Amino acid sequence: MRPTITAFAASPDRGRGLARDMRVRWALEEVGQPYEVRLLSFAEMKEPEHLARNPFGQIPTYEEGELCLFETGAIVLHIAETRPGLLPADPLARGRAKAWIFAALSTVEPVCLEIETARFHDEGKPWAEARLPMVQDRIRQRLAQLSARLGAADWLDGGFSAGDLMMVGVLFRLRPSGLLEEFPNLQAYVARAEARPAFQRAFAAQYAVFQAAEAGKAG
Amino acid sequence: MRPTITAFAASPDRGRGLARDMRVRWALEEVGQPYEVRLLSFAEMKEPEHLARNPFGQIPTYEEGELCLFETGAIVLHIAETRPGLLPADPLARGRAKAWIFAALSTVEPVCLEIETARFHDEGKPWAEARLPMVQDRIRQRLAQLSARLGAADWLDGGFSAGDLMMVGVLFRLRPSGLLEEFPNLQAYVARAEARPAFQRAFAAQYAVFQAAEAGKAG
Repeated sequence: MRPTITAFAASPDRGRGLARDMRVRWALEEVGQPYEVRLLSFAEMKEPEHLARNPFGQIPTYEEGELCLFETGAIVLHIAETRPGLLPADPLARGRAKAWIFAALSTVEPVCLEIETARFHDEGKPWAEARLPMVQDRIRQRLAQLSARLGAADWLDGGFSAGDLMMVGVLFRLRPSGLLEEFPNLQAYVARAEARPAFQRAFAAQYAVFQAAEAGKAG
Repeated sequence: MRPTITAFAASPDRGRGLARDMRVRWALEEVGQPYEVRLLSFAEMKEPEHLARNPFGQIPTYEEGELCLFETGAIVLHIAETRPGLLPADPLARGRAKAWIFAALSTVEPVCLEIETARFHDEGKPWAEARLPMVQDRIRQRLAQLSARLGAADWLDGGFSAGDLMMVGVLFRLRPSGLLEEFPNLQAYVARAEARPAFQRAFAAQYAVFQAAEAGKAG
């Protein structure tokens, strides 16, 4: 049975892979699991049918038979635990790979998202310009810690895992900020992940949604 | 073998249960697992020995034989998966309980933490007063969604689970903001969790650390 995920019918990022369904698509591609996509408008995301799937009215969600999951982290963890390819077999390494999933979502992403929050909510406010460098410095601090741990390694802990997938999914969103370029090993880490065929298939699939929406507008 | 966790030698919250070791202590108490605590100064948290445990230099960490984990979410998930009491047996309900762990850490906590970030980093800045209501409104939006989902139920999805533990651990930190009081069912939800004997034992244990440190200063 093919699982069904939800995604934006019109992603605000114009198909640049920043929406969170990208991480779920990528995980599914890494394990070779075909999937269906249900596209939702912003209005549909706030309707009772979708709120039953995700009480916060967000994408992605994941349906597979009777199972209905929300939260990107929970979905990627479920995919990684039920199909081989995204978690090491050794229980100690497996625990650490899961810790990196949480580190990406709970320690790195909230700090990184502040720059998008600042852009969106502070825009035009008198404090916007003075506040931005403070936000950037908090991001730099986290990136420096991550960069120190990664060092010259290809991946965070041995082979590529769901922890790397989630961390790259977070770092990827920092591209427009220019901050990633200050840490060459992190920049190379993201590029290494982007070169994976599974990443490229997932990126192409979400970009196709944007292209189809644009063609629909033009037609 | 008793696992060893790390915690602040001098918690900035003065033993009010806001530090993240509280959630791990609580999980260990719920499953009846005795544990050891290694207290760390802020300087020790940034030393190579602790950075090897947690690259971001934070507490808590979790050591059990050869296993060394960081990230509160990963530690609570590990405890819940290896001891009965924090995850339902039914695989569908189990998946949803894990989704609530991620929802607490990835969807609710980052928005809630903005109020602490604002207090800490914006304090004394000319924009502090104008910006706070925006942050509060973003928190209210999330709380309203959570409140709507919880409704009149005792817990988020059937019986008490690791998902509730994590969500209460997040909501608990909102106490000083006064925002929780605007959602009576969420306030009752937090109070219901605080009444659990396991919560009370965990709270007492972390408060004893603060009391001992104060006695040490006075002595």
